[in-house]
Amino acid sequence: MEIYNGKAARKLIRENKWMGPTPSLAPGFTQANLVIVPYKYAFDFFLFCQRNPKPCPVLDVCERGEYTPILTAATGDLRKDLPKYRIYKNGLLTEEVSNIVNLWNNDFVSFLLGCSFTFENALMTAGIPIRHIEENKNVPMYITNINCLPAGIFSGNMVVSMRPIPRNMVDKAKEITSQFPKVHGAPIHVGSPEEIGIVDINSPDYGDRVTFKGDEVPVFWACGVTPQVAIMRAKLELVITHSPGHMFITDLKDEELKKL
Amino acid sequence: MEIYNGKAARKLIRENKWMGPTPSLAPGFTQANLVIVPYKYAFDFFLFCQRNPKPCPVLDVCERGEYTPILTAATGDLRKDLPKYRIYKNGLLTEEVSNIVNLWNNDFVSFLLGCSFTFENALMTAGIPIRHIEENKNVPMYITNINCLPAGIFSGNMVVSMRPIPRNMVDKAKEITSQFPKVHGAPIHVGSPEEIGIVDINSPDYGDRVTFKGDEVPVFWACGVTPQVAIMRAKLELVITHSPGHMFITDLKDEELKKL
Repeated sequence: MEIYNGKAARKLIRENKWMGPTPSLAPGFTQANLVIVPYKYAFDFFLFCQRNPKPCPVLDVCERGEYTPILTAATGDLRKDLPKYRIYKNGLLTEEVSNIVNLWNNDFVSFLLGCSFTFENALMTAGIPIRHIEENKNVPMYITNINCLPAGIFSGNMVVSMRPIPRNMVDKAKEITSQFPKVHGAPIHVGSPEEIGIVDINSPDYGDRVTFKGDEVPVFWACGVTPQVAIMRAKLELVITHSPGHMFITDLKDEELKKL
Repeated sequence: MEIYNGKAARKLIRENKWMGPTPSLAPGFTQANLVIVPYKYAFDFFLFCQRNPKPCPVLDVCERGEYTPILTAATGDLRKDLPKYRIYKNGLLTEEVSNIVNLWNNDFVSFLLGCSFTFENALMTAGIPIRHIEENKNVPMYITNINCLPAGIFSGNMVVSMRPIPRNMVDKAKEITSQFPKVHGAPIHVGSPEEIGIVDINSPDYGDRVTFKGDEVPVFWACGVTPQVAIMRAKLELVITHSPGHMFITDLKDEELKKL
């Protein structure tokens, strides 16, 4: 497969030459969650992210009506550069579309949030297995009993993603991911799903069940689905997000997101 | 002198028993810059801070109309807990007052930004001299030729504070302050004032000139006056800030602001 950089990958997507999930595209380039809200909710959403930086790490925010994320992709166009978008109306998913040019409105505010793909690459580079990738599944995600700090109209429980990690690699996984505070950072819990309100590890609320092997323990990271849940709960008249796995590819390199 | 914690120091100030500058009060507790803007400018100001985290490190933001900063001081009252406030109207300083209870308006949004007092304490603990403290002066500050990234109505040049540091301690000073990204972090420049547009190191734009000794070099850090300059340039009808040196004292400990 050809290797693309962030800009080339966006071009491919913009021209509808890549319609699928983005994880394998543009290795090493940081991918981001997209959330677009009407301006009147933008301050509250910004505040929700600031108060809950582990599930909602802000990488870039556009000005009202702008669709170029100047910090992360100066040539990007958030209306066209994701392979699939989700449209939510009054808290309900109504449609998936491949661009939002015709929906665009000068009142929109776009947020790009860090995504766990960045730290998964770092974990794999360090020889730590990532089960859902091995099994070609979506990462299992769970709604916890941990309340996010509310902000204005936004509130909700934290959603976590889970990866089974061999017991002797847990410390290494913690160490590596703690270097990436802009993509969820260190795990929020290790070992006991029930302690964070997860009844059945084999029944994720989102994504797919994955296999545990021998001495593996469940390790939980704050997840970028958290803001989507908060947004759906708030029942805004209109919200646009990326479709799961169909992310925005930035010009940032994963390595740059490491703490200095 | 009696030793206060953050809460006790705020009580003292709230009861008008402490009217002066705050640096010596509540050692070890994090002090913060205050900026209050009308709600309609809050998103733009938040974005300006997000885009310029070195001069504008956000510690806490209140919801519209709230005056308790829940992340940093759950018992705080931003209307009363600073010894001196500045009122700006249309970009001009019009008044200094000891509380803003009568000015308070449910449309206000309050931002607390990190302040260099935190890293100065860490530098002094490590044996690095802080000249303006030794000389009982205000830190010298300069307007640089470095443009902040604009956001909405806010723009302007970065303001830096300067401390003369013995040449053999510069690396240590860099290392220590880089551990505190929430209070301006590592220096933005070392050694050559002219490279960042400073014509005369002996004529600061704000604060006081300080003495250089033998082998000391000027070290420059991003400064919390930067957002005040951006706000004055934007000529908002009303802005309230702390008065220089008269900060908000939080319940956070300086040590907690270190990167994990």
